[in-house]
Formats: sequence, C-alpha cells, structure tokens
Amino acid sequence: MSFPRWLVALGAIGLIWTVTGSSTYTEQVVTSIAPVAAAAQPTSGGGQDLGDGTKLATWQMVNGRKEFRLTVAPTPWEIKPGVVRQAYAINGTVPGPVIRVNEGDKLRILVKNDMPEDTAMHWHGMVLPNDQDGVPLLTQPLIEPGQTYTYEWTAVSTGSHWYHSHMHGEQEGRGVYGSLEIVPRIGEIAADRDYRIMVGDGALGFVINGKSFPATAPLRARVGERVRFRLIGTGPEMTHPMHLHGGFFEVVAQDGMRRAFPERMDTLLVGVGQTFDIIFTPTVPGKWMMHCHIFSHSETHEGMSGLVSILYVDPPAVSLPDLSQLPPAVPGLPQLPLPTIPLPGLPLLGEHGNHK
Amino acid sequence: MSFPRWLVALGAIGLIWTVTGSSTYTEQVVTSIAPVAAAAQPTSGGGQDLGDGTKLATWQMVNGRKEFRLTVAPTPWEIKPGVVRQAYAINGTVPGPVIRVNEGDKLRILVKNDMPEDTAMHWHGMVLPNDQDGVPLLTQPLIEPGQTYTYEWTAVSTGSHWYHSHMHGEQEGRGVYGSLEIVPRIGEIAADRDYRIMVGDGALGFVINGKSFPATAPLRARVGERVRFRLIGTGPEMTHPMHLHGGFFEVVAQDGMRRAFPERMDTLLVGVGQTFDIIFTPTVPGKWMMHCHIFSHSETHEGMSGLVSILYVDPPAVSLPDLSQLPPAVPGLPQLPLPTIPLPGLPLLGEHGNHK
Amino acid sequence: MSFPRWLVALGAIGLIWTVTGSSTYTEQVVTSIAPVAAAAQPTSGGGQDLGDGTKLATWQMVNGRKEFRLTVAPTPWEIKPGVVRQAYAINGTVPGPVIRVNEGDKLRILVKNDMPEDTAMHWHGMVLPNDQDGVPLLTQPLIEPGQTYTYEWTAVSTGSHWYHSHMHGEQEGRGVYGSLEIVPRIGEIAADRDYRIMVGDGALGFVINGKSFPATAPLRARVGERVRFRLIGTGPEMTHPMHLHGGFFEVVAQDGMRRAFPERMDTLLVGVGQTFDIIFTPTVPGKWMMHCHIFSHSETHEGMSGLVSILYVDPPAVSLPDLSQLPPAVPGLPQLPLPTIPLPGLPLLGEHGNHK
Repeated sequence: MSFPRWLVALGAIGLIWTVTGSSTYTEQVVTSIAPVAAAAQPTSGGGQDLGDGTKLATWQMVNGRKEFRLTVAPTPWEIKPGVVRQAYAINGTVPGPVIRVNEGDKLRILVKNDMPEDTAMHWHGMVLPNDQDGVPLLTQPLIEPGQTYTYEWTAVSTGSHWYHSHMHGEQEGRGVYGSLEIVPRIGEIAADRDYRIMVGDGALGFVINGKSFPATAPLRARVGERVRFRLIGTGPEMTHPMHLHGGFFEVVAQDGMRRAFPERMDTLLVGVGQTFDIIFTPTVPGKWMMHCHIFSHSETHEGMSGLVSILYVDPPAVSLPDLSQLPPAVPGLPQLPLPTIPLPGLPLLGEHGNHK
Repeated sequence: MSFPRWLVALGAIGLIWTVTGSSTYTEQVVTSIAPVAAAAQPTSGGGQDLGDGTKLATWQMVNGRKEFRLTVAPTPWEIKPGVVRQAYAINGTVPGPVIRVNEGDKLRILVKNDMPEDTAMHWHGMVLPNDQDGVPLLTQPLIEPGQTYTYEWTAVSTGSHWYHSHMHGEQEGRGVYGSLEIVPRIGEIAADRDYRIMVGDGALGFVINGKSFPATAPLRARVGERVRFRLIGTGPEMTHPMHLHGGFFEVVAQDGMRRAFPERMDTLLVGVGQTFDIIFTPTVPGKWMMHCHIFSHSETHEGMSGLVSILYVDPPAVSLPDLSQLPPAVPGLPQLPLPTIPLPGLPLLGEHGNHK
Repeated sequence: MSFPRWLVALGAIGLIWTVTGSSTYTEQVVTSIAPVAAAAQPTSGGGQDLGDGTKLATWQMVNGRKEFRLTVAPTPWEIKPGVVRQAYAINGTVPGPVIRVNEGDKLRILVKNDMPEDTAMHWHGMVLPNDQDGVPLLTQPLIEPGQTYTYEWTAVSTGSHWYHSHMHGEQEGRGVYGSLEIVPRIGEIAADRDYRIMVGDGALGFVINGKSFPATAPLRARVGERVRFRLIGTGPEMTHPMHLHGGFFEVVAQDGMRRAFPERMDTLLVGVGQTFDIIFTPTVPGKWMMHCHIFSHSETHEGMSGLVSILYVDPPAVSLPDLSQLPPAVPGLPQLPLPTIPLPGLPLLGEHGNHK
C-alpha cells in the first residue's frame, strides 16, 4: 500500500503541529516546514557481503547516474570443495554482484564481454526503453568478444528482479546472472533478514547462489524474526519445488509485485524466470533446511547435496512469558490445554532427547 | 462480478424513467418497457482472421443449434520457413479453428476422423452431459478412421477453454486442438486486443499457434491499450514459464474462471491443460517479446526460436500531459522528483540512442 | 478463522443466560456453568478404510500419547492386475497408513526399518522440535537396517500434510510415504466426501495411492455434494497438472493452510512436496475423470492408464425445482432464457443419447 506524496506531507505537517502544540496552524506550517535538506549524496557505494554468498555491486556516481561495471569472463568456479566447473563469472563471481538501487535512480551499466562468444544482458522485469531491453538482434546488436556495451535506464520497477544474459541458456547455466533489486520509496517489505536464493540447474550443476550443498552459505536468524528470502529461478531448464522445513512462509511478492493476499505454504514452485519474495518467521530454534523437493536435485545416497541451504535459527533475543500457565479466564470454566506453541523454554522442546 | 437479471432490468427501468422524466412511475414502467425485440439472428458466421495466426470456426444455424464441422486429417504443416512436419490438422490448420460462441448457445459439433487411427474429442472445461465429454471407451465409443461423430451440448461454462483429442498425447502434439471460447452474457473481460497464445511441445516442435519463431504471427498493440492474451498449455508434455518483456501483466482468469484478486507478474507457469487470461497494458513502444523462459524452448546459438511471439507496440493514439512539470502542491514543500513513468515523449525514452 | 477460547466461553455463557432468562447475571454464570465433563477418551483407534485405496493408521494411547507403529519393508506390490513391482511398503501398503490426529494431540511414532538400507522419516509441514524433523545426519542419526527409531512431537500444524522418507528419492519412489492429517479444533473444511489423491512417479510407475489405472480405487459422490480431494505430490521427480472433468474445483488450502480467497480452476499444478485441498461439487451424474494432463502419464494407445482416477457421480439425493419455468419477475418484461444448469431432470441431460 502506498500513499500519495501530498498525503504523507500533510501527515508530517500534522505530526509536527501536534508535537509543538502550536495554536496558530497556518503560521506554524509556514515556519516549521523548511525545505527538506538534501542529504549529502554519496558518490560511490556497494561491495558489502550480504551474508548469503552474494555481495553488493559497487557503483560510483558519474554525471548524475549510478554507474556499474560488469565484466563477464570464463572463470574456474568451485561449486563445492574439490569440485571445480568452468563458469562464466561476472566480476569473478557466480552469481554476479547484486545490483541494488533506489526507485528513481538513473543507472548506467557497462557490460564488458570477455567471453569467447557473443552476448547481451537483459534487465528482467524492468520497464525501460525498448533499446535497453537487451535482446540481441531484436533490440540491440550483439556484444561481441572484447566489446563493452552501455545500458542506460531509470529504475522504476520496484522489488526483486534479476539480470541475465539473453543468449541461449548455456550462458545462464554457467552463471551469467545476478539479483536486481529496486528498493521502493514507500512500501518496502519489512524484514529482519534479507537473503537471496538463486536456484540454478545448468552446466554448474544444481547450485544455490553458485554453490552446491554443503558449500552453500549458512544462513542465520532468530526465533521471531521476519526472514525474507528472494527466490529466483535462474534455470536455464527446470521448475523447482522449493520446500522449507520448520513451518510455513508467506508469499508476499511475485516478480517484484506485492501480492494483494499473501498465501501461506511450505513448498513453492519456482520456474525459470520467476522471482518470489517470501517471509518466514521461525518459531523453533535449530537447523531448518530450504531445499528443492525433487530429491535428485537435493539428495544422494550419501546425504543432502545440491539445492540445499540451511537456516540456523537461534533462540529469540527476547524472552516470552509461558502462556500455558495462565489461570482459567472464568471461574468454574475448565482450562482447556493450549496448543503448545513450540517456543524455546516451553515444554515441547527437548521432548525427545538431545535438543533441550 | 455479475448482477442478477432483475437488478439489471430495474436499472434499465430507472434509466429510462430518469431520461423521460416521467412523473408517474408505475404507468411509465408499463408503457415504456416493450418486450425486447428479438434481433434477427444470423444463420451462419465465423471465418474471421483473429490476427494471431488463428481464425474463427465457421458455423451455421441448424434446427436451433450452431453447427460446427471439424475434420481431422494428416497434413504437411510448415512450422517455419523451410521446416515442414507431419501434422494432424483440423480443417487444414494447426491449431484448429477457434470455436467462439455465446453463453447459452446450443451447439452441435460434427467431428470427422480422416486420420489413419482412432480418436475422440474432449471439450476441456465444459460442464456438459457425461456422454458428450469425449473420453473414448469411458463415455463414448472410439471414432474410427472415416467415421463422423456428433457432439451436442449447451455452452454454460464461460471464458477461455480449449478442445482437444483425448487419445494418447501424440495426436495433441501433432495439432488436434483449438481454442474454445464461451462469451459470458455479463462480465466479459474488457480488452482492446484479444490474442491467443497456444503453446505446444510435441511432434511439431516448440510452437505457438502452430508456428515456431520467427514464423509466429506478429502481434500489435498501442501504448495504453488493454491487451488480452489467452494462454493455453496444449502440451502434451511440459510446463512452460511464459515471460513477457516490457512490464508486467495481470492474471484475470484461470481455466475460464475470473480471479477474485488478479495478481501481477511477468512470468507465469503454464502447465498442460491450463488456460490463463492475462491483461498487459504496454507503457513503452517497441518490440516486446512473450517467450518461454526455458531457453532450450526459445533460443538457440543463432538467436530466438520456437516459443517466442513479438508484440509490436506503437505509440498511444492519445497524448498525455507531462506530469513531471506540475508545480509543488504545498507552497514551501520541496518538489520531489516523480518516478519517471516511461511514456512516449517523456524524457526516459531515447536515452540511449537509436530508439527515440 | 479462529476465536480465542475465552471469547467462545463467554459466548456460551451469554447463550445460556439468554435461554434461561436469568435476571442475575453473576449468579447465573456461577450456577449454570459446570465444568465440561471430559468425554471418555478412547484408548485405541484407526484401521478404517477411507474409500480411496487408503486406510487409517491404528494407534493406542500410551502414557498420554497416541502411539503409532510404522514398519518399512521390501514388499512386492501389484500396481495393477498382473503388474508387480518391488516396493518399500509401510505396514504392508503403498502409501503407508493415513496418520490422522487432532490438533493438540501428543504423538509417539515408532519407525522400524526392515529395509536393507538406511532411512529416516520426515513429518512434512509440521512445526516441531528440530531433532524430530527427520533429516538424517543433520537432525538425527540414520535409522539403520533392523533399528527402530522413536519420534515424539505434538500436532500443532493443522490441515493436510504428509510424511515420507528423507533419503534420496528412490525410497519415496518405492512407496515410503503417507498422508498426515491434523484435524483443527475449529475451522475444519466442510465436505461430504474426503478422498486422498497421492500422486507418484518413481520406481512403481505412475501411481495414485499406489495404484495405476484401471486399478485406482473408484471414487463415489452425488450431485450437489462437496467432495474434498487432498492432492499430494509425492514425486520424487515431476510436477503434474491434475485435471478434473465435469466442471471446476476450488482450491481451499495449500500445504494445510487455508487460502484467503479460494480460486476456481479445472487443472492444478501439483509439484513434489506440495499438498492442496480442493472442493468439487459435481452438477452432472456420470463418470468424471481426475487425471494428470501430461498424457504420457495417463494415456496410452490402448486407453487411459497410470495417473487416472474416476469419480462416479450419482444423481442427487434431493430433487430440485425446475427454475426455468419461473414466471417473469416484472410484468411486461420479457423472460430471458435462464442459462441451463445441467442438473439431472433438467432438459440438458439426455440430449445426445445413451445417458438419460
């Protein structure tokens, strides 16, 4: 839900007026509302580790645009200890760096092709000029080996999207993709944690964020937190039913667009090209898996492998009262047993043994 | 949303009463409402080209029923220039002609089998008598080579459906299917354009409306129009994540049933047997692709191929004011930059070069 | 939707007070509300045939817990007459018995491994202590051949779920799974019939509830009844577009969670690990198929086979008035023909011949 800017502005005025207790409304408005001071704009940014095996793309402000530089090149890539595959990495990593900007930012993205084959880059989910759409031979010429191509567009399509090579699926399968996140001015999805789960099934094998379990990045959260996962089906070939252990999640957005009515589930079909924002609020500490439920993608005779991530859930940072000991609400009424909410410290935990 | 007939009738009465300014309500009703004159019913119809590579089935009125004749026969079928496959065409085309009728129409459909093998025709999504359901050996005998079988039923299941052979998937894969559209009396989905996207993955290869890109029919629209696509998964084998460039669409109906809350997305899983009605309102002129995002279905090392359609979007027929130049709403409040809506004529277009 | 217990209690008090007409509220509450007499709890149960090829698991109460015993063992399993495959059956059947308990029940489940390989059992969709989650080497040791492992947890995750082996998919494909149904205290989905459709695509072939058509259990219903299907994708490999003939159904829950807005459709993608509760209200008698619409999973050149169930729909148990003969609502208004609802006895039936 978003509000018109003038309504937000009026709300701010009202708030200030209330707080200052002014008795002369008109005067107060005039004197208390100074033009919003423009915060000093940083001239560069990015590079942070996002805790899920990805990191932010770096940028610098050049002539009013955030400028990103992506170089795609053949790179040996270790998907798990001892298993190295030939990738096409972007700036040395699979996936490429996370491009994360604000709604309204003007962007310039320079794509340098150091692969031995042609390419083009598509900004999936973006509303932009047709000649910036990145479809070779349809909306632009091929980017040939050694060439650099410049894309310029303004970020107006908010939410979780992605960018990827728009050549045959082999390039995608070797890693030519990354997360593309346009933070909305109003209405960002509230979350305590923010993790990407980019699912791949090409020449690198079954990988999440470029890694195969047990090399996938360990994710962390606490009981009671809102954990946001950005699921992205990078393909290039399969639909994956992604399953979460330990409860259910809510699907709050699809392809960057907020859902009017978030549905709850524990398994979600993620097809090639789709993105989903889901929110999981863990209620029980432990090691909870997120994995593809097609077991040939996630398990072998030697245990879990491939499309598996583990969310390590710690106890909550605050303690909660034990609601099961409340006295009866009405004298004379029997106290029905409460459904035992499995929070740490409550009786359900430690029932079986080693987990107390 | 639909209204009871009596409510519509009362609304009509009220409208007439208001317009005529009658002061005697009861009398006016009686005198102004004559029985609706039955429009002269046409006795035949169909045959129009629908602009998407399909055309309407022809019919003639026989004893109070719209009578359609479908002949299924082996036919060499060119899926793209120079590539001919052996199809089972209906009345000479793949897909078969679009059967489009009104809610309440009584139908008679004669299916002649000129294939060298048995068949039966299923009216997918229809509520009808069980013996008209078209499942061979379960609800009817086989239609043997050379035989003609007659189906009779009344169209009560509104929306976008399809018909297809209900023998093993090979017949479907060779083209024995078509769109089946029951126009509702009230509540039709409003649209400026109406295109079918029937996705096939059988013996004819990866085809949309029987053709493989670049032979798929070029689709046309203008900025600001509501473009309706009827997506139909004809299979016989695969689920296709259909992706639209240039923005997002709304899913307004599934299997002919209106969605209570249309969700917005840019990629939609279309499984075998499913139909979806989606609405796309383009905001930027250009060549925007609709394609399966599994690239082995839609792209080769030589460029796009297979499950690809292009929507050619022209500038709008009306011009819109440039909202970015509005003065500040509240004196003293700074004017935040509006998100740049990429409409033609606004600054976003032509940023990069050849597309102005 | 659920209400706090105290609100329900107050409602009950108010109801009693109103009925008895007491003028002294406080006194009345005290005297009229006796503690709810605890119904005599049964000490064992289960074993009933559910009419869909499955039966309830048996249990007995042991130290305040419902105790179930599951033994997994190699078993020759006839998927259809004359076709026997090597299964891993639970208590001798594929699928294993249906574990059906109440919200709040404390469970103990003893899993005995009589297979020649390791295993572990996962309670899919349950909120429970991490060490009861059944992921070998992550949350528990392997259950080696000959060993028995004990799981203890409390049923708090209501709705339709399932249990299954969490080893590589081969065990799942051979039958190590069953339905897991937690009946909620408030808000159970109302239905006249309750059938399971567990879809498998592993070493046993394409099976519904362990059987391949025509050996799948014949399902029965009457026109006008609410028929609940619990669709469960047991995999281990594929997504199946499950299609229903004869009308549409409503998706009322996913993975056990109620949908805020049930959508209507006739074909639903069921991926591995997903469960859906759907409601179908047949309007026409006859033999209506539920089948996977990928025909290589459900049909051969010799007719339907594999992932096919038939719902035999009988006429309604009550008769309905013929609404098409109502007189015009407003004198002078023409009577538009009603859409012909295909109920038995109305004109639509018997149009074509053998089904009257």
